[in-house]
Amino acid sequence: MPLKNTNVVSAYQTKFGRLEGATLREIFAEAVDGATNNAGIPKKDIQAVFVGTFIPEMLVHQGHTAPLLVDYAGLRGVPATRHEAACASGATALRSAVMAIESGIYDTVLVASAEKMTSVSTNRATEALAAAADDEFESSMGLTFPGVFGIAAVAHMAKYGTTEEDMARAAVKAHKNASTNPLAQFQKEITLEKAMTPRYIAWPLKLFDCSPISDGGAALVLTSNEKAKQYTDLPVKIIGTGQASASMNLCDRNDLTAFESSIAASKEAYKMAKLGPKDMDVAVVHDCFTIAEIIASEDIGLFKPGEGAKALRDGVTALDGDIPINPMGGLKAVGHPVGATGIKQAVVIYRELIGDAGANQVTNHDTGILHNFGGTGATAVVNIMRRSDV
Amino acid sequence: MPLKNTNVVSAYQTKFGRLEGATLREIFAEAVDGATNNAGIPKKDIQAVFVGTFIPEMLVHQGHTAPLLVDYAGLRGVPATRHEAACASGATALRSAVMAIESGIYDTVLVASAEKMTSVSTNRATEALAAAADDEFESSMGLTFPGVFGIAAVAHMAKYGTTEEDMARAAVKAHKNASTNPLAQFQKEITLEKAMTPRYIAWPLKLFDCSPISDGGAALVLTSNEKAKQYTDLPVKIIGTGQASASMNLCDRNDLTAFESSIAASKEAYKMAKLGPKDMDVAVVHDCFTIAEIIASEDIGLFKPGEGAKALRDGVTALDGDIPINPMGGLKAVGHPVGATGIKQAVVIYRELIGDAGANQVTNHDTGILHNFGGTGATAVVNIMRRSDV
Repeated sequence: MPLKNTNVVSAYQTKFGRLEGATLREIFAEAVDGATNNAGIPKKDIQAVFVGTFIPEMLVHQGHTAPLLVDYAGLRGVPATRHEAACASGATALRSAVMAIESGIYDTVLVASAEKMTSVSTNRATEALAAAADDEFESSMGLTFPGVFGIAAVAHMAKYGTTEEDMARAAVKAHKNASTNPLAQFQKEITLEKAMTPRYIAWPLKLFDCSPISDGGAALVLTSNEKAKQYTDLPVKIIGTGQASASMNLCDRNDLTAFESSIAASKEAYKMAKLGPKDMDVAVVHDCFTIAEIIASEDIGLFKPGEGAKALRDGVTALDGDIPINPMGGLKAVGHPVGATGIKQAVVIYRELIGDAGANQVTNHDTGILHNFGGTGATAVVNIMRRSDV
Repeated sequence: MPLKNTNVVSAYQTKFGRLEGATLREIFAEAVDGATNNAGIPKKDIQAVFVGTFIPEMLVHQGHTAPLLVDYAGLRGVPATRHEAACASGATALRSAVMAIESGIYDTVLVASAEKMTSVSTNRATEALAAAADDEFESSMGLTFPGVFGIAAVAHMAKYGTTEEDMARAAVKAHKNASTNPLAQFQKEITLEKAMTPRYIAWPLKLFDCSPISDGGAALVLTSNEKAKQYTDLPVKIIGTGQASASMNLCDRNDLTAFESSIAASKEAYKMAKLGPKDMDVAVVHDCFTIAEIIASEDIGLFKPGEGAKALRDGVTALDGDIPINPMGGLKAVGHPVGATGIKQAVVIYRELIGDAGANQVTNHDTGILHNFGGTGATAVVNIMRRSDV
C-alpha cells in the first residue's frame, strides 16, 4: 500500500562547495534554519531529528554528531539520531523519519545533514571515503572509489558498447543544468571536448567523470496529513520507499554493469507506491561518477539495461527531455557533501514538484523518484514523491 | 498510548571481553546466528536490520558497516542501516526498529551490533571514545570520559554527600552479579577494599569505577503480534520508548548531578507505557562509570535525587533487592563494547522477564526498564519492556 501519512512541507539546501570558514555545525544550522524558522515552521514544532552524516569522525574528529549538531542549530533536547550508510546516509535518515511518522510516534520531524569535507586534504578525504568500501578486501589493497567505478565503467563498456564520450555527455548535462543553479559548486557549462580532456583519474574515468569533494548541508521537514496544511498549501507526499543492500566488495558480485541493490530498492518503492517507471516525471539519481548515472537510470527501470547511454545521447534525460535526470545538476556539478546528498536529492524533487525550481523547472512535475547509493551500492535507497494535489 | 505491536521474540549476547582473533564481522555474525537460526527463527524471515555501532571508522578503519556486517552474517541483500549515538548507538537502532514495526512497513526485523575495540591500543581506544565528546570544546582540550564523569562525581559528592565508598559499592555489586554470568568480561567478585584501591584514573574515579574496553556483540529479533506466536510462546513487548538529547559539552549544563536527557527520555517512556517507576521490577542502567549508575537510578525515577547511593548501600538494588539494577553485572563488570551495549541491555531484560536468567534471575519479572546513554548524556534512550502474558 502507498504510504499515506508522510508529507514534505519544507526543504532547504545550503550552497555546496568549498565553504571557507564555515564549520560542520554552522553548515548544519543554516540548513535547519532554512527548513524551519525561515520557512515559517517554528523550531518548537520539531519533535525529533533524523541526521545523516557519513564520516565526521575522520574529517573533523567528531562522533556522536546528532545531538551536537541539533543543539547548535537551536534544537537542544530534541531527540536526534545519526544514520550512516556512506553516500546513502542522507536517504537512510529520511527513511527512518518516514517510519517515525507512519508509526504515529511523531507528527513533525526534521531530516537534516551536513558534511564538512574540505577541512582535510584531498588525499585524506579520499582515504576517509575509502572507509565506505570493504577495508579487509578492497580499501586496504589501495582500491579507492574512482578505481571501483572505473571497473564498473569498463564492464558497461564491454557489455553494452558504452563509450567514454557517452560518460562525458553526462558531465556536460550536469554542468549545463548546474549553470543556472546558484547553489551548485560548479556553476558553469563545459563543452564535450573539455569533458573528454584525457586527465585520467582511474581509466576510463577522467577528471570530469568524477563528482567533487564538497562541504554542504540540506534539511527537510516531514509531517502528518493532519499537520501538513498548517505549514503549506501544497505538501508533497512520500508515497513509496525502498532500501536494499548488497555485498560490500565487488568480488562477490555477479554483474558489474548493474547494481542489484538499486534494482531491488526501486522495485520495492514502485510496488509500495503502486506506480511504475513510466509514471515518473523527473528523477534524481546518484551520479557520484558519470557511469553511475547511466547505470542508475537503467537500474531504476527508466531505461532497459544498456540503453542509458543512448537516452543520454538522445537528450531524453535533459532538462527539457521526456524524463529529466538530475535537473539541478546532480552530484557531479552541484557537489557531493556525502551525508547531505541523499537529503539534497529530496530537496530537488520537492522544489521541482511544487514548481519552485526556477530556471531548472521541469515541465511535468506530478511525481518524482530519488535514488541514493552508498559505496558501490552496498546500500541503495529509492523514494517516490508525489504532489498532494495530484 | 502504549506501543501495541512490537514484540521481542529472541535475544542473544556474545561473550564480552578481549575476544582474541575474532574480527568485527565475526563477532557480529555470532550475534546474528544466536538470535536467528539458533533460536529457531530462519534468516529468510528477517526483512530489515537495524545496526548500532559506535566508531568502527577509528577502531578498524571501516565505515558503512551495516551492509558489510549483515552480508557476512548471511543476510546479503537485506536492507540494513547503521545508527550511531556514541554509547547509545544500540538503543537508537532498537528504537528505529520499534518504529519500523509500528509503522507496518516491516513485520520482522533484526537489531544487531558488534564493536571490536581491542584491535587498537588502550590509548587509541580512549582517543576514539573521545569522539563522543565535543571536539571543539572538550576532547581537543584533553578532556576524556573518565575526566567528564569525574566532574559529575564531584558534583554529586558536593551536593548530596555521595562518597567514594558509595561508588565502590556499585563496582562490588556489579562484580558480584557478573560472577555468575558466563558472558561477563570479569567473572569474579571483588571486595569493597579492593574497589577502594587508590589507583585513580581521574579523581575521584578509580580503576574499579570504570567500565573496561571490550569486544562483543548482541542481537534481538522484533516482530509484530501476528507473527510473534510463530516464534515463541512468551514474547516480551516493548510498551514504551523515549529518547532525548542534551548539550554535548558540560559547560552548557545547568546541573552536573543529574542528566536531563535521561530524565526526559524516561518520562516519555513511562508516559507511553502508562506506567511509573513503581511498576518496574528490574532495571538496567548505563553504568559506564559507577557514578553513572547512581545518577541514572535517580534520573529514571527509581529513587529521589540524591538517594541513589543510599539505595545501593541498603541493598535495594542488589539481585535480591526490591528493584534489582544491572542484575547480570552491567557495563562495569560484563564489559562495554560500545555500540553493542544498548542491545545487550535489552537481551538482559528479555532474559530476566522470560525467566531465563539462571543464577541471575530476579524474583519479580513482569516489567523492566532499560536506560542507555551516549557520551555524557547528549543522547539518552529509555525503553520499557513487559512480558506479554502479564
